[in-house]
Amino acid sequence: MLSAMPPAREAKEKSGTKSRRSGDGLTYASSGVSIEQGDRFVSMIQSLMRRTHGQRVINIPGGFAGMFRLDYNEKLFKRNYRDPVLVACADGVGTKVKLASAAGKFDTIGIDLVAMNVNDLIVQGAEPLFFLDYIAVHSVDPEWLMEIMKGIGEACSQSDAALLGGETAEMPDVYAEGEFDLAGFSVGVVELSRAMDSTRVEAGDVVLGLASDGLHSNGFSLVRAVIDHAGLDLSQRYDELDPQRTLGEVLLTPTRLYARPVVKVQRGYKVKKVVAGMAHITGGGLAGNLSRALHEGVDAVIDQSAWEAAPVFGFLQRHGKIDDEEMGRVFNMGIGYCMIVRPTFASSIREKLEKSGERVSVIGEIVKGSGRVKMKRRG
Amino acid sequence: MLSAMPPAREAKEKSGTKSRRSGDGLTYASSGVSIEQGDRFVSMIQSLMRRTHGQRVINIPGGFAGMFRLDYNEKLFKRNYRDPVLVACADGVGTKVKLASAAGKFDTIGIDLVAMNVNDLIVQGAEPLFFLDYIAVHSVDPEWLMEIMKGIGEACSQSDAALLGGETAEMPDVYAEGEFDLAGFSVGVVELSRAMDSTRVEAGDVVLGLASDGLHSNGFSLVRAVIDHAGLDLSQRYDELDPQRTLGEVLLTPTRLYARPVVKVQRGYKVKKVVAGMAHITGGGLAGNLSRALHEGVDAVIDQSAWEAAPVFGFLQRHGKIDDEEMGRVFNMGIGYCMIVRPTFASSIREKLEKSGERVSVIGEIVKGSGRVKMKRRG
Repeated sequence: MLSAMPPAREAKEKSGTKSRRSGDGLTYASSGVSIEQGDRFVSMIQSLMRRTHGQRVINIPGGFAGMFRLDYNEKLFKRNYRDPVLVACADGVGTKVKLASAAGKFDTIGIDLVAMNVNDLIVQGAEPLFFLDYIAVHSVDPEWLMEIMKGIGEACSQSDAALLGGETAEMPDVYAEGEFDLAGFSVGVVELSRAMDSTRVEAGDVVLGLASDGLHSNGFSLVRAVIDHAGLDLSQRYDELDPQRTLGEVLLTPTRLYARPVVKVQRGYKVKKVVAGMAHITGGGLAGNLSRALHEGVDAVIDQSAWEAAPVFGFLQRHGKIDDEEMGRVFNMGIGYCMIVRPTFASSIREKLEKSGERVSVIGEIVKGSGRVKMKRRG
Repeated sequence: MLSAMPPAREAKEKSGTKSRRSGDGLTYASSGVSIEQGDRFVSMIQSLMRRTHGQRVINIPGGFAGMFRLDYNEKLFKRNYRDPVLVACADGVGTKVKLASAAGKFDTIGIDLVAMNVNDLIVQGAEPLFFLDYIAVHSVDPEWLMEIMKGIGEACSQSDAALLGGETAEMPDVYAEGEFDLAGFSVGVVELSRAMDSTRVEAGDVVLGLASDGLHSNGFSLVRAVIDHAGLDLSQRYDELDPQRTLGEVLLTPTRLYARPVVKVQRGYKVKKVVAGMAHITGGGLAGNLSRALHEGVDAVIDQSAWEAAPVFGFLQRHGKIDDEEMGRVFNMGIGYCMIVRPTFASSIREKLEKSGERVSVIGEIVKGSGRVKMKRRG
């Protein structure tokens, strides 16, 4: 029988561990310390992973891969899914990793990683099932790696996704000391007839904007250039920005996790398709991403005065002398996720989202057009 | 309706694109050339991805994630799956990426990436469904990136896995010029009652070894140390190794894809469970990985004289003066995949595998024991 034992996670040294000379011949092993550290890391991770596991995860001792039982509750599954479609995506967090290193703050970047993936997944109408990570480092240092992993675990729990597996690769020759990279991968499921479909968007639909928590995970090369250019200090507090938090803390605010509230809204209207389209606002900004939810017969007209962007955007714009257009292309400017909804349901959906803790604004409407997003400012 | 349009692939610059000064203010954009290159790359990739897509992939214009219809052929699916379990894993190729860069040869490393993942997946009894990649580079150079992607696409096709999506991240500040890293993620499905389960292994079972194609994707830090130590030249041919191919070509021989033959064997014995356990031989070697397929009541006794390792292993051992034990811990030593099978079916399974093009040896047997792999040499 398949038993309830620690799940698959590999933190093998792969071809990555440093070779060193011993006596006359070459040996592969890195120092004993590093192997011990690796083992300690793996066992810490396993308890962390288990906390994200519901009854659908099958734990297999020594497993080469993670296992997720799709219809653990067969009746429930059959009621919800007649024609299940798996939805999957892969994403990283870009050079936000560099800022985390520079600020020496690693407890939020894992949240970013999960959010970048899961927020993409739910755009297709999916509910998240599970997540896997890839972490590549110069050398396995349990302390800050565990900080990253804790963030990943927390964000998985908050998104109702099981952390099913992952890979930690120690590659001293690819990554400089202190450098690392993160990639994530998530899988969800949606009933075919309920999958997002841009042809459903109609003139008259309302665009709801869900507030972002600051920069999220895009634009960090520009952010770092502004810091250099203006001589800003990550460890300093700037009153104009946030008197309580350092610049580093503000910039590293993790990407908001929209999965739970968005999935809840969709479950709330089982029969009627009240959500016509969605968009996760990442690189390319609001216009660049919302346009992906449109078909060629409609435009979205966005009123930029309908919401207020957090101080961090103005702060960066002033210090970097960045023009408005560039800001809107690079950053989310305060809106992290959009839902295009039927006008008669707009206020009830907004209420539901607000009950889940989202800050929601009606930011625009759909009109006949040619698949474009038009940014306007009232008055 | 969901239409047959290019699928989701993001090659966004993310926060990764270089910022540069323009006039008085900062702008985010990298040079126009790079953006054009990125676009060209994405469109090349999309046709490459489509070639791996069967009817189960739902193509969505502008999609934020890839979509895979689990029961496209509902009847067939229902016949095969009463309680489907999703199997997923994440893996990279370690520092084999460094050797690919050094040799300037990029057409095989993508095959390694798919193989490292899919070979893990099938150990659990799964048939592969789809694959996603993460490629992180200093800068998007379509020529060699396309070589990598072609390898990924080919290997997906050969493993009957759809290349469902991926992410190309341009991060000049994390990766030095010419450096890159690869991560892969794959998902498969197995019927719960047919999932691999180590408790099934019994004394008397036979261990079949499927030949590897050289080093596969483990031990490359040691390989590179040997090259440095012995002053070897990647572009040279060594008669003792292979008179036809350069050292670089031999070392970069891609990891063998075991998915198709292994899945075929399992489909061939629908009723009887003739395969008791399997192992993909990666870092840790044959003993380290085969032990993961055992429970605590059995040992595997391996006869190391039952097969011959390719010349590359002896070549590296001599030039690096590496001892036998170390060789066996780091490298696959000629066996890339193991199947523990019922003795009465061993020869018919072996025949089936050989018909699929595998070189198969009976390399050992299961005896009562304590979960260990014992390496012996006959005579």
